[in-house]
Amino acid sequence: MNEHRPVLLIRPRPDDPRLTESVAGVNERGERIETRVVVERALTLYLNAQEIVTMMTINDYPEYLALGYLLNQNMLRPDDVVTEVEYDEDLAVVVVRTERQTDFEDKLKKRTQTSGCAQGTAFGDLMEALEDIALPKTPLRTSWLYRLTHAINTTPSLYLEAGAIHGCVLCREDRPLVYMEDVGRHNAVDKIAGWMFRHGETGGDKIFYTTGRLTSEMVIKTVRMGIPILVSRSGFTAWGVELARQCGLTLIGRARGKRFIALSGEDRIVFDQDLSYVEEESAKHRRKGAGDE
Amino acid sequence: MNEHRPVLLIRPRPDDPRLTESVAGVNERGERIETRVVVERALTLYLNAQEIVTMMTINDYPEYLALGYLLNQNMLRPDDVVTEVEYDEDLAVVVVRTERQTDFEDKLKKRTQTSGCAQGTAFGDLMEALEDIALPKTPLRTSWLYRLTHAINTTPSLYLEAGAIHGCVLCREDRPLVYMEDVGRHNAVDKIAGWMFRHGETGGDKIFYTTGRLTSEMVIKTVRMGIPILVSRSGFTAWGVELARQCGLTLIGRARGKRFIALSGEDRIVFDQDLSYVEEESAKHRRKGAGDE
Repeated sequence: MNEHRPVLLIRPRPDDPRLTESVAGVNERGERIETRVVVERALTLYLNAQEIVTMMTINDYPEYLALGYLLNQNMLRPDDVVTEVEYDEDLAVVVVRTERQTDFEDKLKKRTQTSGCAQGTAFGDLMEALEDIALPKTPLRTSWLYRLTHAINTTPSLYLEAGAIHGCVLCREDRPLVYMEDVGRHNAVDKIAGWMFRHGETGGDKIFYTTGRLTSEMVIKTVRMGIPILVSRSGFTAWGVELARQCGLTLIGRARGKRFIALSGEDRIVFDQDLSYVEEESAKHRRKGAGDE
Repeated sequence: MNEHRPVLLIRPRPDDPRLTESVAGVNERGERIETRVVVERALTLYLNAQEIVTMMTINDYPEYLALGYLLNQNMLRPDDVVTEVEYDEDLAVVVVRTERQTDFEDKLKKRTQTSGCAQGTAFGDLMEALEDIALPKTPLRTSWLYRLTHAINTTPSLYLEAGAIHGCVLCREDRPLVYMEDVGRHNAVDKIAGWMFRHGETGGDKIFYTTGRLTSEMVIKTVRMGIPILVSRSGFTAWGVELARQCGLTLIGRARGKRFIALSGEDRIVFDQDLSYVEEESAKHRRKGAGDE
């Protein structure tokens, strides 16, 4: 395979001094060492006058994160008009203002009653929003898949610099478009959703690549973005597979080197790549479990 | 290093047919394959008469999970008397009953007001409970550390069977005692906390091994269990390191083969292992990022 370095619209910024810091410690020989670790920051999100959540984030794209969070929590509708997104760095606050009166107060109340855990209830809300979505029959050529994973694994990133971070990449055909990283995977997903909203991009012709497991939550978010294909180098959970099949999502996991497994939506896959020309992944670019949560 | 298979008090159950299921799909050659995936189940937790949360879990130890969740959320105190833990498999409900009237209703209210996200606020509550805890100066011999990681990596597990799962292990000196797995790491931690509570085990002489990153949340839970040493093969976040230093926790990450890095509490480490006798880890037992969240 030829070296393939497409121009990303948004790429990781491993050289940004605000995103990592140097920390001193010792190694296995008792020698003093310095290493770089990713910096988390608290960011509090308001929707109009209401405080919604405080997130821990690397805080490289607070506006995309704010928009994507609200969209993925179903607090902002795709057809909502956002009049302003105001970010105050000193206060660590981001405020999203909309034309429409938002109904998040009822939602927050409901959340407490049903579970007391954001994950549990956000889930219920998200499921409701899936029912109207039909994913298009966009093909996935295996030649694109190998070019994508190679390009993603060799792009300079915070992961390669400091480890312990998740990454998500929005792609079209064989081209990675937007590569976001964050301490929590949900943030990386939300930043991509916010970018799509801001730029009027739809999901039907896209492929979503993520680090980490193919869980039900990840399937729901991908379907909500209208993206028909979800790829990870990690494995599957049973409920993730079940939901993907219900939604008609193509679900590809354990994508490492030339290997992958598809457990849902296999009909989108076009096996056009001659596998004898695909390299096994090099040790250097293998994700070493450092992105696990 | 000699083969070292200590007798675990609780070990993973990769052969339990309820914990995994076989799923059909295709591989990179378009061939039909079958693979095993971990099954997630919903489990709803009540504390006395109040519904608290619905959790997604492999549900192998609902009682330990229930107790540990309540302890780690600060809804149950270490000195509380639990009069009954009732698990109903058909209803998928577990009820914890205590002598003391519990104050979780106020807590749930507070949660909504301050953040609307369980992660954010649970955090605030957890921080409050850290202030009184002083971790003992229990030593960590590097010879123990290598024996522990070797034993853990070679113990049959759902991870080795199906991937895409987290694991946490409670250890003493060079011996793994309790090895719990679950789809979410927080569940695996909570099951260990519940086991400790049930068996009156304290944390001061223990070592906690986990898959996944050394985040602030993981540091807080370890300190709350009174355990002075936390080890992972994954990396660090800046806030995790900061909190570990504040609490005097020994924090060891990137523990793979003979390598590791300590970024906090290095004074507990006794470098007694001759490194020329430590094997690099074999490809077979390397966690391949499949445990990421």
